[in-house]
Amino acid sequence: MTGMGPPPAVADVRRAVRHALGDLAPGSLVLVACSGGADSLALAAATGFAAPRAGLRAGLVTVDHGLQEGSAARAADVVRLAHALGLDPAEAAAVHVGTAGGPEAAAREARYGALAEAAGRLGAAAVLLGHTRDDQAETVLLRLARGSGTRSLAGMPARAGLYRRPFLELGRRTTAAACAALGLAPWEDPHNLDDRYARVRVRRRLLPALEEELGPGVTEALARTASLCRDDADALDGWADEVYARAAAGCALSDIGGVALAVPELEKAPAAVRRRVLRRAAVEAGSPPGTLAAGHVLRIDSLVTGWRGQRRVEVPGGIGVVRRYGTLVFARQPASPAS
Amino acid sequence: MTGMGPPPAVADVRRAVRHALGDLAPGSLVLVACSGGADSLALAAATGFAAPRAGLRAGLVTVDHGLQEGSAARAADVVRLAHALGLDPAEAAAVHVGTAGGPEAAAREARYGALAEAAGRLGAAAVLLGHTRDDQAETVLLRLARGSGTRSLAGMPARAGLYRRPFLELGRRTTAAACAALGLAPWEDPHNLDDRYARVRVRRRLLPALEEELGPGVTEALARTASLCRDDADALDGWADEVYARAAAGCALSDIGGVALAVPELEKAPAAVRRRVLRRAAVEAGSPPGTLAAGHVLRIDSLVTGWRGQRRVEVPGGIGVVRRYGTLVFARQPASPAS
Repeated sequence: MTGMGPPPAVADVRRAVRHALGDLAPGSLVLVACSGGADSLALAAATGFAAPRAGLRAGLVTVDHGLQEGSAARAADVVRLAHALGLDPAEAAAVHVGTAGGPEAAAREARYGALAEAAGRLGAAAVLLGHTRDDQAETVLLRLARGSGTRSLAGMPARAGLYRRPFLELGRRTTAAACAALGLAPWEDPHNLDDRYARVRVRRRLLPALEEELGPGVTEALARTASLCRDDADALDGWADEVYARAAAGCALSDIGGVALAVPELEKAPAAVRRRVLRRAAVEAGSPPGTLAAGHVLRIDSLVTGWRGQRRVEVPGGIGVVRRYGTLVFARQPASPAS
Repeated sequence: MTGMGPPPAVADVRRAVRHALGDLAPGSLVLVACSGGADSLALAAATGFAAPRAGLRAGLVTVDHGLQEGSAARAADVVRLAHALGLDPAEAAAVHVGTAGGPEAAAREARYGALAEAAGRLGAAAVLLGHTRDDQAETVLLRLARGSGTRSLAGMPARAGLYRRPFLELGRRTTAAACAALGLAPWEDPHNLDDRYARVRVRRRLLPALEEELGPGVTEALARTASLCRDDADALDGWADEVYARAAAGCALSDIGGVALAVPELEKAPAAVRRRVLRRAAVEAGSPPGTLAAGHVLRIDSLVTGWRGQRRVEVPGGIGVVRRYGTLVFARQPASPAS
């Protein structure tokens, strides 16, 4: 009746996976996205152990980005190892990485495309990603440098659609220890040493500098910040949903296309909520979210809180916003001649 | 009728002060808190110029912390300069700096005590502080290392009670340029070079490292983060006020002292709001805010969202929280025998 149990790091990664899969229907397939690095290798091993014990099927997809010599052979190694870990089906997906948005964004887009394709084809109920608390801290620091607010600081979600990240509260040290304890040799991606990538500079220079100057625990603090900011952003987005619905009710715009919002409803909302509603209305009317900046939203807001008869406010996408008789109108064509 | 106008940096600091004072009643006294450093010297000069033109009286207080040789003489210099800049009354306030909370906190407490005393005695309507966007960025980075959430990341407010910070959106470069343009020689505080202070390390090592690794604009991004987080935190605190009031209504606790909240009202609120309400209730019941951590609040929250008949949750200050018939009771004594 007594036993040694697994080494602590192995117990930790298994517990994290078990916790992440708790709500799936028996017989569901979960796919591990595995590069062969320590994080996703530990994830593959933990899932191969925990999934069948939870009545689930577990498979694996490794994406061959084709960017490094020997990448196809390495992908084949990961697939072989997957079988040894009890993951079946296990597939290598070769992708073509484009150039749009820079090398990191292009590789990410190709990777998620391949994962979504495999998940759809195999009928997976979830795709597991190996991001750890350290990855989360790096993400928060990268986003902080953009100054784009609470939703951005929320970092990566533990769940989004098909994707789940069981290790967001575990350190990289734990995944490395789990691999070592299980005799698994992780692949060291040479990209992880390439200082041309902002994330690599954050990992190898900035986070150590922060720990050095501000004391240990910065990584944990950044991950905690992400979690708190996520709850806050969720609550405010929900509030903005309600205000948007109330402000838009009774302001139908079928004649011109676009969005109309009742100013009195906007005035009742606090600034943080009102600006979320205004941003959403501009996007709804056709302004591209990527180019619609905080400054544009502030100018629209001045039609609500600093009203002195201003003319039309222009935002990206050829969208104009005017205030007419207590209604804000967001539309591609001027809602009325600018007088 | 034509003129050169003041140099751009001088125009910027004057405009910032004018904007910060716009709502004060004619004849009000505003006091500049001035160390003699570039930021507060530019503030003193701008206030000496802008206040009388806005129908206000302007004075100055410089705090002599008595921590450095010659500090009394320097304070006297600042007072003399104040008169030259048209600031009257101008006073040096000698304070005794204790040791509680460390050297920075002790100096801050002594300084704000002296400012509040002078403001009260002189009948000031506002006290102006010279903190710039750079100070705000440093504050955000220091607080980030604590992982304490949106309110903490909001940094320093532009207004709080008597205090106003007209320069929060101006860079330190602008205040230095304004001093140079006006022929004012700022005092260089040797503390600003002392690496034993975390803020000095942030300023001299971390922010330059962030700019180096992530590109220019990090200081502005951190200040923008502060501003967005402040709006978000204000909105969520306002929401929490409403939920608290609804949840507490009809749950009078005059018999035992403490706080009682109706669980159904808590269940309707999103996590970010519910946890703010629970935190407030614990503090209201007597838990010291400084030691009440996020983990304690999460354990109280489990009485709402993970209810399975748990016993009393203990939080700092000898406060216990129990759930009884759809009510959470926060009290120093057990609300009932823990069965």
